[in-house]
Amino acid sequence: MTQVVYLNGEWHAATAAKISVNDRGFLFADGIYEVIPVYQQRPFLLDLHLQRLQRSAAAISLSLAPLETYQVLITELLQRNRVMDGLVYLQLTFGIDEHRQHLPSQPLTPTVYASVSPFNARWEIPTPFTVTLLDDIRWLRCDIKSTSLLGNIMLKRACQQRHADEPLLHRDGRITEGASCNYFFVRDGQLYTPPADHLILAGITRTWVIHLAKQLQIEVHETPLFTHELTAMDEVFLTSSSREIQPVGQIDDIMIGQGQCGPITAQLIGAYHTSKRHLIQE
Amino acid sequence: MTQVVYLNGEWHAATAAKISVNDRGFLFADGIYEVIPVYQQRPFLLDLHLQRLQRSAAAISLSLAPLETYQVLITELLQRNRVMDGLVYLQLTFGIDEHRQHLPSQPLTPTVYASVSPFNARWEIPTPFTVTLLDDIRWLRCDIKSTSLLGNIMLKRACQQRHADEPLLHRDGRITEGASCNYFFVRDGQLYTPPADHLILAGITRTWVIHLAKQLQIEVHETPLFTHELTAMDEVFLTSSSREIQPVGQIDDIMIGQGQCGPITAQLIGAYHTSKRHLIQE
Repeated sequence: MTQVVYLNGEWHAATAAKISVNDRGFLFADGIYEVIPVYQQRPFLLDLHLQRLQRSAAAISLSLAPLETYQVLITELLQRNRVMDGLVYLQLTFGIDEHRQHLPSQPLTPTVYASVSPFNARWEIPTPFTVTLLDDIRWLRCDIKSTSLLGNIMLKRACQQRHADEPLLHRDGRITEGASCNYFFVRDGQLYTPPADHLILAGITRTWVIHLAKQLQIEVHETPLFTHELTAMDEVFLTSSSREIQPVGQIDDIMIGQGQCGPITAQLIGAYHTSKRHLIQE
Repeated sequence: MTQVVYLNGEWHAATAAKISVNDRGFLFADGIYEVIPVYQQRPFLLDLHLQRLQRSAAAISLSLAPLETYQVLITELLQRNRVMDGLVYLQLTFGIDEHRQHLPSQPLTPTVYASVSPFNARWEIPTPFTVTLLDDIRWLRCDIKSTSLLGNIMLKRACQQRHADEPLLHRDGRITEGASCNYFFVRDGQLYTPPADHLILAGITRTWVIHLAKQLQIEVHETPLFTHELTAMDEVFLTSSSREIQPVGQIDDIMIGQGQCGPITAQLIGAYHTSKRHLIQE
């Protein structure tokens, strides 16, 4: 089924939607985005996504419309497309400048693009991933969800060449995140994850997992973690809007929990599924 | 005058050239580019630019056509546009993937885009710049000339807010480059510039200036330099294809050569102008 996408106030068939070659998103990756999971046509944690969009926009000095505008847009996008479970993609760029120059000489009208594509929502415990350690080569403002993603792409490609499912990135041994996910670690029944500083994107699923863990009386530590500590971990999982909570069974040669999904990970997956059920039944 | 641009085998008016929203250049900044100066309709150091394009492409696993293809394309671009002195812009991306996914599931046809815009070639000694020190927040593969440029844009904006002409970037005190240029320093009659490692783009103008300096019997050191050494510098200049050799008279509060263009900088500017004259008279 052809999807209908939104571009600058108009609705187009996805294949017909085109932007100018002078769009700063194309020339400079001067843009930001969000990916919002949708279950049974209802966006999950939309407020948190739009608040992060606002933080990203402020960081790159991009003017946003009031957040309700994007909420209305997403509602119409979901109405126009018959996607039940899907991922909404929302991207904004600085707009079209007829001269290629690093800084536009006058204010531009931002480009706004939105689409939705079907995805397989998960209701079971997924098969654990194998991940691989890679040096984090990205910039020092990974807290901004920007379309300047070539570093992430290159890391994904390096990971694929090692036949792993996702990289686990570190800077000189200090763990950051994945190329499109956050990581959590369980040791002695407590949860550990790197702090939401400039080196990682504060994932919405990450935020929600911390919230769920606290509800379940699991102690959570947002603290720097190092690669030499990995062998001591009882459980590892990664989080993202599209992969939800994904157990990790192996990090290169290090087996985690005999390669199985551990009990705390399973408990959190259960709580996550309950959140989704609440959304659908609202 | 409306420029004619090249996009995927077709020629369009610049304002009419459009790419798909599913172009990986737009969604992931999964692309590379070159900016080639043109004097009297002749591209300057084109071979060096195309060799660097090849290095960038290899680094991101992008397949290029034989380099002659781009040479022919640029020749036609210059014929179709009546630009005497200008900047050719050549961008390649991984192409259009109908699904937004970090790694395409099948080989794609790269997007090729080229345009040319007029610029003011310089034949005088330019007024020295004031530059400002800023922390280099960019990724660790600045040797790739990629369109993932948001970091550079943010640094340019921070620089503009300080009313400086260009940033001078450093990582914990180690000097790298500008947001779109390389830096050179003169001390006791010798030339110093940071080495062409992963932290800087090996500029074509940088390469040419090193070549010219050697011809002029000026000793050149490609070596790490630190911010605490700046007060000891007799001359400073920056280089880029669009700004050629640009003297720097001030770095924040540090005056360089009493704010004037120094003798070695002037000598190199003269040699650079001679290179351009040779090109034009070829």
